[in-house]
This record gives sequence, structure tokens and C-alpha cells, in this order.
Amino acid sequence: MARWKLTLEYDGTGFVGWQRQTNGLGVQQVVEEAITKFCGEQAPVFVAGRTDAGVHALGQVCHVDIAKDTTPDKIQGAVNFHLGEHRVSILSVEPVAADFHARFSAIQRAYLYRILDRRPPPALAQGHVWWVSYPLDVAAMNAAAQLLPGRRDFSTFRAANCQSDGPVKTLDELTATRVGEEIHVRARARSFLYHQVRNMVGTLKLVGEGKWTLDDFAAARDAADRTKGGPTAPPDGLYLTEVVYPA
Amino acid sequence: MARWKLTLEYDGTGFVGWQRQTNGLGVQQVVEEAITKFCGEQAPVFVAGRTDAGVHALGQVCHVDIAKDTTPDKIQGAVNFHLGEHRVSILSVEPVAADFHARFSAIQRAYLYRILDRRPPPALAQGHVWWVSYPLDVAAMNAAAQLLPGRRDFSTFRAANCQSDGPVKTLDELTATRVGEEIHVRARARSFLYHQVRNMVGTLKLVGEGKWTLDDFAAARDAADRTKGGPTAPPDGLYLTEVVYPA
Repeated sequence: MARWKLTLEYDGTGFVGWQRQTNGLGVQQVVEEAITKFCGEQAPVFVAGRTDAGVHALGQVCHVDIAKDTTPDKIQGAVNFHLGEHRVSILSVEPVAADFHARFSAIQRAYLYRILDRRPPPALAQGHVWWVSYPLDVAAMNAAAQLLPGRRDFSTFRAANCQSDGPVKTLDELTATRVGEEIHVRARARSFLYHQVRNMVGTLKLVGEGKWTLDDFAAARDAADRTKGGPTAPPDGLYLTEVVYPA
Repeated sequence: MARWKLTLEYDGTGFVGWQRQTNGLGVQQVVEEAITKFCGEQAPVFVAGRTDAGVHALGQVCHVDIAKDTTPDKIQGAVNFHLGEHRVSILSVEPVAADFHARFSAIQRAYLYRILDRRPPPALAQGHVWWVSYPLDVAAMNAAAQLLPGRRDFSTFRAANCQSDGPVKTLDELTATRVGEEIHVRARARSFLYHQVRNMVGTLKLVGEGKWTLDDFAAARDAADRTKGGPTAPPDGLYLTEVVYPA
């Protein structure tokens, strides 16, 4: 039995999220089924970050134990083959130690949130961005974003059904930058509360559209109360881009 | 009656191409239907470049005559609204003179062809790139590309059912560059033969994978014979990016 670390890209559109559900197809299910087709084993997959329905990944990580004698190349080629038309792709496969755990060994997770900030709706990027049809003030959004990094109570940005032990997290980085017609919000932390990134983005947008000042934003943050935060940004624009492990 | 120039973005996936067809939905049909819903007129739309099934546009141009008294803003807002979930978006609307013709007034067309050059298949870019799973030599492809610009007989890259008057065209620019995991081939000309860009890209790939030398490529070009050229690259990677008109 060997343990393998798999890095994945997927398009969350059409999936009910990472986890297996009874109401639709989870990314987990199609990955596990492709692995079973390859090695003939029922091999459960453990993931670094359980993404929601419609959320994408450019660098999701999971691990799996396989008894069959194999190589990274064979796993990648065969699992990608068996994934077929599913919009899931194994970017790389590495052997890891038996105590490596995709979720518990991770020391940082990075997310990208893409806002398409232009009047006409997206044709090519439909489902891959949050379309905001009026101009947002990116400098103001980035100034507000700088009020969040550090260790603090993130209850204002925590979804009601969050299963984390508590609301205190350390946010390593939060930035908002304009990239052509898009605004990219990037966030890094060891771990995030449920919907934290989407709630931070939805609240930053209130600053970007001039409804909130920086003081309003700081007051909402300090209230440590979800009802004082902005709305949850839609899943379409969110990408898990990287999971970092100790060297 | 006023004439309007519309610049469009669309995702060619799921369309039978620009033109109305009996075997599926053309982009033309959904644009004309959205215009009719807006102004109540049967207003035929004339396009700069008729794209094939699966080919995308970032800057397609068409013109239309509308009797209703209106403004660019109203046309853009209403037509985008009526386009609904179709992956077609009106990027801009401008009034033009009565002798403007989207097709015949154009002095240059620009295309981008995206090759995803990496071992794992695309998850997010499925349908938006040509996936080539082995490494291509971009420098060699670009060197070959430099053998094509100028005025010449492009029969080697001309599809059998091309309706152009003749095979002689002036290619203004052809480049191949690496952009991260992708190779971008960019082409500019007043006009192109049918499938010319996809046939040039399919032939450049033979150089990129080392099957052809630059001499082979030049010989194929000089043969002025489609059977001496490379295969036609798939539509998925092709984007009409810009149509240029006199200032």
C-alpha cells in the first residue's frame, strides 16, 4: 500500500461540490470512480479543501492509498483517461509518506476570486466569474482588504453552518487588483471558515461600489457578527488555486 | 433608419457557427431574434467574419439597420437582456454611416489560436483550447510562421469548399509564442481563405513536434496544394479577436 498526493484542476459548474451528495455529482465521486477503474480498488480520497457547488479548482490537493504496484505517470495517465469528459484533470501525482494527509498536513490555502467588472455580460467566462455590470473602485476595495489580515475573530464572514471549532483564524493575505476587465481578489490563510472568502468578497464589493466607507468595513469586521457583513458572493468566481505543505 | 455597428463576444461551443443553419442554432439567429425582441423589426445582421461551429469570438463585428429611434446604450442593454443565457454578449454599439458594411468595409481581421500544451487534459478550458499533450517547440513553430507573411498563393492552407475568388492573399502577421502552459498563434490579414488559420496552425504543429523541418514547411507552402499541408486544427482553440476598419 502506497500513499499518493494528487493535484487537481476542475470546473465546479455542474458539480454539487467536492463531496459526494445524493442530489447530484460530486467531484469526489468521479475521482474515486476513475481511481477504481484504474486499480480495481475502493480507494477513498481525502481532500485539502471541500469546495462548494460551482466553485472551481486550479490546484486542489487530495491523497489516496493504492495497493496496486504503480507509478505517478501511470496513475496520472490512467485516471485522466477514466475521468473522460468530466471537467476534472489530474495535474500531477507524487508519492508521499504514510503520515501525509491532504487536509491536516496543509499549512496554507490560496484562493482567487474573479469579478468581471464591465457592462456587457460574460459570454466566454459565463460560470467562471462574478459579473458586476457597474464600475467598482478597486483601490478602495484593496484598502479595505488590508484591514483583514492577521489573527482575529472572522465571525462577520462566517456562514451559519460552519463546522470550524471557532471563529478565530489567521488571514495571511488579502488583495484586490484590476487585471484588464476583471478584479482579482486573492486570499491566503492556513484555513478558512465556511464561505469566508465569498463573504469577504461580497463585503469588499460594498466598498467598491461606494455604499460602504473603510470605517463601515472596519466596524462590520469588529462587530464579529455575520448579520453585519455583506452578502455572499456567488460561487462562480471562486478558485482554490494552491495548497501549501511543509517542504 | 439608422445603421449600427455591434461588436460581439461569443462562445462558439454549442453553436453550428455564425450562419443560420437548419441543423442547429447559429449565432446569427440568436442575435437577430434578440434584436427583433428589442425593436419589433425583422432586421438582418451582416457580419465581418462567418465563424465555423465551435469557433469563438472576442471581437466579432456586425452591422444592422434599425428603424426605431434609439441609442447605443439602449441597443446594448436590451439586446444583451434578450440574449439571456445564450453565450453571446454585445460588447459595444456605435452609430455608423449608411455605407458602412461590417464585411466589406473591414481592412483587417485578427485571430488568436490557443493550444494548451501540457500532459493533463484541460478541465476549465475544455472547448476553449486545442489540447496537445506532448511538448511542442515554440521557437521552431514561430520560425516556420515567419515563412508565411506576405502576398502569396495560400492554396496549401485553403479548404476545398472555400468560396474566395482565388487563393492569393496577403498575410500581415503570423506569430507563435508561449504563454504559460499555452501556445498562442496570432494571425492578421485583410481576409483569410476558408479554414486558413486552422490549416496554418495544424501545419505549424508538425514543425513544433519535430515531424517537419523548416524546409518541409517551406516546400509545403510553395506546393500551393492542400494535400501537401498539415491537418486542420480543431475549432475549439480559434478566436476572432478583432476586425479593423478605416479610421
